[in-house]
Amino acid sequence: MNPNPSAAATRDPEDVETARPAQPNPQQPSGMPIHKYLPFHRQIDVSLPDRTWPSRRIEQAPRWCAVDLRDGNQALIEPMNAERKLKMFELLVQMGYKEIEVGFPSASQTDFDFVRALIEEDRIPDDVVIQVLTQAREHLIARTFDSIRGAKQAIVHLYNSTSVLQREVVFRTDQDGIVDIALEGAKLCKKFEETVPETTVYYEYSPESYTGTELEFAARICNEVIEVLDARPDRKVIINLPATVEMATPNVYADSIEWMSRHLDRREDVVLSLHPHNDRGTAVAAAELGYQAGADRIEGCLFGNGERTGNVCLVTLGMNLFSQGIDPQIDFSDIDHVRRTAEYCNQLDVPERHPYAGDLVFTAFSGSHQDAIKKGFDSMDARAAAAGSTVDEITWGVPYLPIDPKDLGRSYEAVIRVNSQSGKGGISYLLRTERNLDLPRRLQIEFSRAVQEHTDAEGTEVDGGAIWTIFSDEYLPVDAGSGLEPWGRLKLRGTRAVSTEDGPDTLAVDVLDRGEELTLEGTGNGPVAAFVDAIAQVGVDVRVLDYAEHALSEGGDASAAAYVECQVGDDVLWGVGIDPSITTASLKAIVSAVNRAERAAS
Amino acid sequence: MNPNPSAAATRDPEDVETARPAQPNPQQPSGMPIHKYLPFHRQIDVSLPDRTWPSRRIEQAPRWCAVDLRDGNQALIEPMNAERKLKMFELLVQMGYKEIEVGFPSASQTDFDFVRALIEEDRIPDDVVIQVLTQAREHLIARTFDSIRGAKQAIVHLYNSTSVLQREVVFRTDQDGIVDIALEGAKLCKKFEETVPETTVYYEYSPESYTGTELEFAARICNEVIEVLDARPDRKVIINLPATVEMATPNVYADSIEWMSRHLDRREDVVLSLHPHNDRGTAVAAAELGYQAGADRIEGCLFGNGERTGNVCLVTLGMNLFSQGIDPQIDFSDIDHVRRTAEYCNQLDVPERHPYAGDLVFTAFSGSHQDAIKKGFDSMDARAAAAGSTVDEITWGVPYLPIDPKDLGRSYEAVIRVNSQSGKGGISYLLRTERNLDLPRRLQIEFSRAVQEHTDAEGTEVDGGAIWTIFSDEYLPVDAGSGLEPWGRLKLRGTRAVSTEDGPDTLAVDVLDRGEELTLEGTGNGPVAAFVDAIAQVGVDVRVLDYAEHALSEGGDASAAAYVECQVGDDVLWGVGIDPSITTASLKAIVSAVNRAERAAS
Repeated sequence: MNPNPSAAATRDPEDVETARPAQPNPQQPSGMPIHKYLPFHRQIDVSLPDRTWPSRRIEQAPRWCAVDLRDGNQALIEPMNAERKLKMFELLVQMGYKEIEVGFPSASQTDFDFVRALIEEDRIPDDVVIQVLTQAREHLIARTFDSIRGAKQAIVHLYNSTSVLQREVVFRTDQDGIVDIALEGAKLCKKFEETVPETTVYYEYSPESYTGTELEFAARICNEVIEVLDARPDRKVIINLPATVEMATPNVYADSIEWMSRHLDRREDVVLSLHPHNDRGTAVAAAELGYQAGADRIEGCLFGNGERTGNVCLVTLGMNLFSQGIDPQIDFSDIDHVRRTAEYCNQLDVPERHPYAGDLVFTAFSGSHQDAIKKGFDSMDARAAAAGSTVDEITWGVPYLPIDPKDLGRSYEAVIRVNSQSGKGGISYLLRTERNLDLPRRLQIEFSRAVQEHTDAEGTEVDGGAIWTIFSDEYLPVDAGSGLEPWGRLKLRGTRAVSTEDGPDTLAVDVLDRGEELTLEGTGNGPVAAFVDAIAQVGVDVRVLDYAEHALSEGGDASAAAYVECQVGDDVLWGVGIDPSITTASLKAIVSAVNRAERAAS
Repeated sequence: MNPNPSAAATRDPEDVETARPAQPNPQQPSGMPIHKYLPFHRQIDVSLPDRTWPSRRIEQAPRWCAVDLRDGNQALIEPMNAERKLKMFELLVQMGYKEIEVGFPSASQTDFDFVRALIEEDRIPDDVVIQVLTQAREHLIARTFDSIRGAKQAIVHLYNSTSVLQREVVFRTDQDGIVDIALEGAKLCKKFEETVPETTVYYEYSPESYTGTELEFAARICNEVIEVLDARPDRKVIINLPATVEMATPNVYADSIEWMSRHLDRREDVVLSLHPHNDRGTAVAAAELGYQAGADRIEGCLFGNGERTGNVCLVTLGMNLFSQGIDPQIDFSDIDHVRRTAEYCNQLDVPERHPYAGDLVFTAFSGSHQDAIKKGFDSMDARAAAAGSTVDEITWGVPYLPIDPKDLGRSYEAVIRVNSQSGKGGISYLLRTERNLDLPRRLQIEFSRAVQEHTDAEGTEVDGGAIWTIFSDEYLPVDAGSGLEPWGRLKLRGTRAVSTEDGPDTLAVDVLDRGEELTLEGTGNGPVAAFVDAIAQVGVDVRVLDYAEHALSEGGDASAAAYVECQVGDDVLWGVGIDPSITTASLKAIVSAVNRAERAAS
């Protein structure tokens, strides 16, 4: 080995090399108060020189446990209501998760009611086990068992805090006191288990704040709990070692997991589980290295929801397996559906660059990347043809695309489209930056299809100018002096609106209907409703589903853009109106939707 | 060791244990096409059984290189313009980065012009080195040297693709052919260096797609380039090993880095650099473990911007050091400023759960977490008092808060406020989910101050109901039957609007002005402008700066909420109006702003 004299990473204390700067480093002290922080190794000793995990490889999926409905949910600004909870549960079941932590029923009436509803409405498939969290206190344990009564099976997840810091600051007790809390809880669980005879009860124990706990003490408390819960081959006990706060590099977590795996009693009757948080941005790595280090099971959330920086992301972990030819045993084939549902339930967006699921992760903007990707696709085609098979039968190999987006329900077309800066992200971005149009998300999707059709037909890349032309052709009336053929059944000429403090608005509107000048009148609680009422008189059946409007620039004399999603007959589609008057813009938007519906039908 | 029979992670092939399921695992095959993917170890052999990095620790900051203006910028939907580029450059300099990749001048005129502007306008501090990327082709290298002419010093960053896949699919050549490209480029660099005699030129070489390159070949090509570039103690050569695509767990990347560090010639004259991407969500881990494995330098972007899933996040890496009491040599003390600037330059939001910088990472919603945090703060106070010092002088130790948010310019107050579900995120979220109000960002900020004042005064937590009360009191008129004292100078009674295809709109409006019934008339290009014109007649001077409006629910008979940012006299403030009529809602919003301005002045 050629020791690297400038490396700042040093060996263990017994073998520390003095780091000496290799050359003058112009970087300066930041002045930030580093004196406040103790390095992890001065807080907790994790020493495992004969570790084996760095030479191991992952070759099959772990047991997964999805904790979106508990750890994820408790970290939401507004926790899920019953309807969103059920949607999340059904998504997780549909994807293939067999262990699902459904709540903290003793801490939340909503959670309790949700668990009861799952059981009483018979919504839990036979091969799915629900899991419920409880603290180690009698009335909470009693309530927890009340919540699972009638379930075929359930995992009761008992926890108490064990870290040095929590012992000192929160519980003000010593190790024995903390062990007593855990054992008392475990004994109470066994006692209350008798109150749910028709339910097979499994147990999980978490020494919460494990990463801040001395390993010897963590092993002691887990082993004493394993004894009380009487782990057996047919009733294994899950020992879950959470990185409640991620405190060190992920190799240190892996060392600690391998150490624990060696020091747990009845190891073959124990399911060793990981629960990494992401405070240092390395939760995925901690889960993977900890799994290499001997764990059997991983708890996490879709897209990494959870306290603070979140739990480890189950999608990333599963898809990382998939990318290595290992079946995640979870179905990610419609990732957009998974993402939409999670976004709806959590009311948090999945970031643009989130692995596998973000809007931008299968895009390549750089010309050299695009060129290499194209050559990769061509090569795939040629290899498949030479082998007399299809591209779906041969090994994937396209530069800059670690997996085939199609395997997630994201198409080749989407990749190429976004490459040409005309994908959903690109289109709406260009309209926003160049035209100040801020399209609602569903309109973005609708319009991206129009652009797609154009690029497919033309086979060319489209720029901001071309996108604007396509947008105008699709949604806006033809300008008078443009020389283009006007299109569309209706044209708005003028309005007279009367609004009073009480009573409905009235609107008289002058329109051209297939070239015929008409004046129609309608009433409603505003100009939109009154306009819909007015055009019903000429047989136009419109229902407004959504509406948004904004100014195109600053200042009171700016134009406004209005977007309306309408049901016209059986079709649902968008209309767009741009006008200096916010009222006229919205009416023009309805006209746009009506005209588009007629064009689509013809 | 108690080998874990259920662990799916296995040792190296020479020592593979058969993984046997410990108990029936109900997880089912996903049906996803795993046959398409080869595991990494069947593509590239990385074997280092005598690795030393897992026993090393990080004890000082690496040399940083910020590539936001190149790798980050090229992955933006709309690359930065000159003004945004300069803002990013100045931010990076201000934070303390001394090596900044400023562009790919031979590939982009914008980049070329930006580099020229930096040099000609003398914007590069003496201790900062700019870096420019170039492919290994003569006209591009010539252009690259043209771009740096006149700089005191610069790093010319030469790259070519070396992976098995790129050799086969893109370049259709063998290893020798790829080496020739690199050496030819290196020789041309030395030749063109003579054209910029006043510039000290350093070199960086990247075997692009390194993670897909055989290690022996990567070492060969790097060593031949090191020879041509003649690495010396005073003119070290940077060898940058990019995870262009992240292809394996981060321990494998670390193994490969330690292997390379041992096999690079003139190692003491080489700066070994990492450039991790985040395809598997483990870029931070790859950087940290690779640094432990002997690297000297790390390239990344603020908040992990960059191709697809992004580059490694420089903020997370730096703050991870800080949390261990190691000076990152970068100033993160005003993280919100860093974030706002990056968001402005990249036009991408930093996600809510991004380590250290996300909106939600210093929040605790769980009652037990809040309780523990409070006890942690109390304990800090007590310890400081006992030691006769301040809390800023003693070691940080608060459960669930890995660092003191104050060190990033995020205050204790902010933590507590968000805990009480009344922070900026919380407020707007609650208004959105409970009231369907989607406040523009600047209005969110304005309103958060009102809530802050309320919580400071009351000292209590606020829930959704309380927030709605504060919002109504702040922005909306008093309901007739509420028994509350009406407030505000103006009250809207009714309108009559006439709009024609040509010419301006006219509006007649009935208002109560300090209790006096008036009918005012105005003209403008829409009802907003006409209303502003009308109320000017009674001395109200309003300029509308921004406007947004949306439906409160689906359906044409839904109410609308309008938000206007107005300049009223010298004040800039927001008004809100809610009404079934989109027109009336927007006029009510102006009335709201006018009334609030008067209240603030009184």
